Amino acid sequence: MSEGQSDARYGERMQKKKEIMDSRIGQANDERGVVIVNTGTGKGKSSAGFGMVARALGHGQQVGVVQFIKGKFATGEEAFFRQCDGVTYHVMGEGYTWETQDRERDTEMAEAAWEKARTLLQDESVSLVLLDELNIALKKEYLDLPTVIEDLAGRPSMQHVVITGRGAPQDLMEVADTVTDMRKEKHAFEAGVKAQKGVEL
Amino acid sequence: MSEGQSDARYGERMQKKKEIMDSRIGQANDERGVVIVNTGTGKGKSSAGFGMVARALGHGQQVGVVQFIKGKFATGEEAFFRQCDGVTYHVMGEGYTWETQDRERDTEMAEAAWEKARTLLQDESVSLVLLDELNIALKKEYLDLPTVIEDLAGRPSMQHVVITGRGAPQDLMEVADTVTDMRKEKHAFEAGVKAQKGVEL
Repeated sequence: MSEGQSDARYGERMQKKKEIMDSRIGQANDERGVVIVNTGTGKGKSSAGFGMVARALGHGQQVGVVQFIKGKFATGEEAFFRQCDGVTYHVMGEGYTWETQDRERDTEMAEAAWEKARTLLQDESVSLVLLDELNIALKKEYLDLPTVIEDLAGRPSMQHVVITGRGAPQDLMEVADTVTDMRKEKHAFEAGVKAQKGVEL
Repeated sequence: MSEGQSDARYGERMQKKKEIMDSRIGQANDERGVVIVNTGTGKGKSSAGFGMVARALGHGQQVGVVQFIKGKFATGEEAFFRQCDGVTYHVMGEGYTWETQDRERDTEMAEAAWEKARTLLQDESVSLVLLDELNIALKKEYLDLPTVIEDLAGRPSMQHVVITGRGAPQDLMEVADTVTDMRKEKHAFEAGVKAQKGVEL
């Protein structure tokens, strides 16, 4: 379709690209659990975490999920993954919503949720732990950051952890292996489109 | 935990925040299908798409997936979602890999994959269509961008579409409702960590 590019040249470029990738893959030999942080104001932080849950389940791995935000509505991902084999699912303050506006209660709920997280972080049979919206609980200081970092560091060496939410603390990003800043370029909500099932909920 | 912030002031701030959110939610009344583009060099573009697939399935919706990149290995998400009810799954050039480095063949494969995508984009029973790595096929000019945009515009009004991949074309971002630029802050691969099951594969 692109004119002026001969098939031979195309083959050459692709070959070169393949060699570079193969060499980079050859150098990356370290197999260990990684900490992945998805932060930023854009869409996709939690969805990317749940996509990784699906991926791990596809490999027959055990997965743990702790959601640190409980909204008014049950979400699609909760409905979906709760019925999957291989998933331990916990939502902070089950049955409770952030509507109470009571700091003491919020802190208690976050701490109880962290206890669930800690159990997962000590379980060698769990390959992937998703700590959804943990960054929010840290930002609001419901949880003690050094304790969280210590528990992460003490997990089984092959266990992967995904942490999502806006405003990831600097210290957490420093101990993470992979950090993605998901930036909002535009969002349908701003054009007056309602949050919809399967997209936001 | 944060001192010097009284409970009353905390309650007030949370109340104000809630009012702002409620008012914004009240204004966003438009219910329609949206086009979401996940682009950038960071991790999470495809995972976020697959997370949305899970979310939609959790609401009992029908979902279609077309993957425009076929790697050497079957991926966890493919293994997982192929066995889910409610999912139509197609991988470009099934059984074929990009290793052939034959532009004509790549183009044919991409066009055949687009035919599958078009079928989904004409099916009212499908609530969400994930066009994984479509941006790559567009960037390499395997597909005609105006045709793609036309097919997107002609889809059922309530259908959502998620398009992933680096280097989304400007014209595509312009017709999209939501665009997220997933920026790599750091990546474990660069520190020598191998791509691992459940994380990258």
